[in-house]
Amino acid sequence: MRAETDTAAYPITPRNRVKRMHERGSYDRQAVHAILDAAMLCNVAYVIDGQPYATPTLFWRKGDTLYWHGSSASRMLRHLKAGTPACLTVAHLDGLVLARSGFNHSANYRSAMCFGTARLVEDSDEKIEAMRDVVDRFYPGRSALLRPITSQEAKATTIIAMPIDEAAAKVRAKGVGDDEADFALPIWAGVIPVTTVLGAVETCPRLVEGVEPPEMLGLFPPGARLDTSLLAGQDAYEDA
Amino acid sequence: MRAETDTAAYPITPRNRVKRMHERGSYDRQAVHAILDAAMLCNVAYVIDGQPYATPTLFWRKGDTLYWHGSSASRMLRHLKAGTPACLTVAHLDGLVLARSGFNHSANYRSAMCFGTARLVEDSDEKIEAMRDVVDRFYPGRSALLRPITSQEAKATTIIAMPIDEAAAKVRAKGVGDDEADFALPIWAGVIPVTTVLGAVETCPRLVEGVEPPEMLGLFPPGARLDTSLLAGQDAYEDA
Repeated sequence: MRAETDTAAYPITPRNRVKRMHERGSYDRQAVHAILDAAMLCNVAYVIDGQPYATPTLFWRKGDTLYWHGSSASRMLRHLKAGTPACLTVAHLDGLVLARSGFNHSANYRSAMCFGTARLVEDSDEKIEAMRDVVDRFYPGRSALLRPITSQEAKATTIIAMPIDEAAAKVRAKGVGDDEADFALPIWAGVIPVTTVLGAVETCPRLVEGVEPPEMLGLFPPGARLDTSLLAGQDAYEDA
Repeated sequence: MRAETDTAAYPITPRNRVKRMHERGSYDRQAVHAILDAAMLCNVAYVIDGQPYATPTLFWRKGDTLYWHGSSASRMLRHLKAGTPACLTVAHLDGLVLARSGFNHSANYRSAMCFGTARLVEDSDEKIEAMRDVVDRFYPGRSALLRPITSQEAKATTIIAMPIDEAAAKVRAKGVGDDEADFALPIWAGVIPVTTVLGAVETCPRLVEGVEPPEMLGLFPPGARLDTSLLAGQDAYEDA
């Protein structure tokens, strides 16, 4: 279930205000969270010595804080105790939109951009908790069934945290948007839907005999949409 | 067909060198292009007044130059004739990897990061050519069948170009990578494959009677993988 306290909108500032196609934008916290929680991969933008980096990485959300694993920024962050500005973006492609003019060709999508200050998680307990969270957020209840995290693994893991200061969602979810006069042209137009789906589970060939699949695998049935499964996983993780 | 001249590797510099999990990295031009060409959506990172932005957007490749539509950076670019450093990233999620320890949980993916200097396309002919290219790259031969681009549309369109100076691909495509000792544990492990697929075409309800679907729709059969269709589209566009 989506958290009921999640009702406030994010503040609108020059940083997160949707400029291009602003009518597709929203600052609603639940709308932003629903787009984030439907994803496993994001892109994080940092600046290192004036150079921007867009790094694709797994991420997870806990309340209003986003987490991800170490990256090219972690060396920089070690020297920046106050943190550094970052932008974490998620985008889902939902359809290809073929119009009667080149100009009106488009795509259906759901995207969210989040802005904040990224900091290194350095406290050892906080880090071990985050390492459990990333498992349980995607696979509810799984961390308790695993071989425990060793202190060496915690040392070798870099985790970055970013409270969301500002965010915006942007969505296009409709049919062909041709100019009114163009609808009369004898040109084919339409939408090709796109979905990201799960395949049949490939059990590890080295599984110990007799080990049964865990219950939470039921969240990932073959043919299901990935976004639906990930949303359900986040809900189960928040309810636990 | 993949271009045969595409053989040289990109130079390796501190900017594009793969640091985390470097054994998954490659600087091979064909490997980078194959990951780019399998995608429609990318993330572009810019810096504006010290703030990084990761903007999700459609993009296309022509030779060694990447193009995308205007964004929050276009206002800035208008004032920066020499261009500005940017990073364009593509990531495909191919599978969820559930290991016997939290530490070895992972994902299968293909990603490409490209670095260069982004500039505004201001020449009107170059802009109209780019507006045709983006249609033909995704839908080979389609621009010739459409209502032509108007000069007003060209004026209203912002296009950004970035020759690729450096790039890196990073791929994980394998099963569970547990520690050797952990394989003996009675814990379930496996991979859940993820694919992005096409649905049945939704023809525009306002289509003029008797208009037939274009031949290139054959590149997008229902149930096909999006990445396969997009790669085939790029090949047909390059061969045209």
